[in-house]
Amino acid sequence: MTDLRTARSVAGDLRATETFNLIAADKVEGTSVYNRGGEKLGTVENLMIDKLNGRVSYAVMSFGGFLGMGESRHPLPWDTLKYDTGIGGYVVDMDSDKLRGAPTYDEAQGVNWEDRDWNKRLHDYYGVAPYWM
Amino acid sequence: MTDLRTARSVAGDLRATETFNLIAADKVEGTSVYNRGGEKLGTVENLMIDKLNGRVSYAVMSFGGFLGMGESRHPLPWDTLKYDTGIGGYVVDMDSDKLRGAPTYDEAQGVNWEDRDWNKRLHDYYGVAPYWM
Repeated sequence: MTDLRTARSVAGDLRATETFNLIAADKVEGTSVYNRGGEKLGTVENLMIDKLNGRVSYAVMSFGGFLGMGESRHPLPWDTLKYDTGIGGYVVDMDSDKLRGAPTYDEAQGVNWEDRDWNKRLHDYYGVAPYWM
Repeated sequence: MTDLRTARSVAGDLRATETFNLIAADKVEGTSVYNRGGEKLGTVENLMIDKLNGRVSYAVMSFGGFLGMGESRHPLPWDTLKYDTGIGGYVVDMDSDKLRGAPTYDEAQGVNWEDRDWNKRLHDYYGVAPYWM
């Protein structure tokens, strides 16, 4: 019986993990971002949300001084981020060159989030389908 | 030509509004919530996000003292909220009784977001399809 209960409990936990994996937006903000090698790249500074369909479109990363870049904002399509429960952070599966050449903006300048072409270029760069499709 | 350009511009704006309607999570937080009568009910305190599919599952409302209730947290399924650009806030299309009897939790007590049954009851109460379906 103990084994059965344990098995049930594990199955329940797995199911819960697969189905519900809720996190508060203010907890995502501040979460570390790593590359595949486990090197910390920066942190999630903000999330951009589509008001109409309720999907997170971008996680805006702050990569302060990373790779010789100044403090800048990297909007990463949500689908490029994988949450790794082991390290308690997001892993970006791309090499440094890819990240270095990625579309970015600085805080003072800002960015026009409503610019369809800009959004498309961003997704094209990372090779992921636009979130609105 | 001027009219044509204007028409194009308007069409472009409309398209942009329909397609891109991005808002930063930290801007959603703090946004006012109204009932249909235009009465302010409270504010969005936090958003709960499904880490796996990137969807906003709940907007957690803080209704301080509303309807004689103490300060409490109301997790509202995202689909129950409509953004009204005219008033610059979210409108909850339900009457006071519905809202008063809604599942809630207090900040000290917290809530188990991973509890599948609790999530289901919450959606059932509001009569909307669970976000994970």
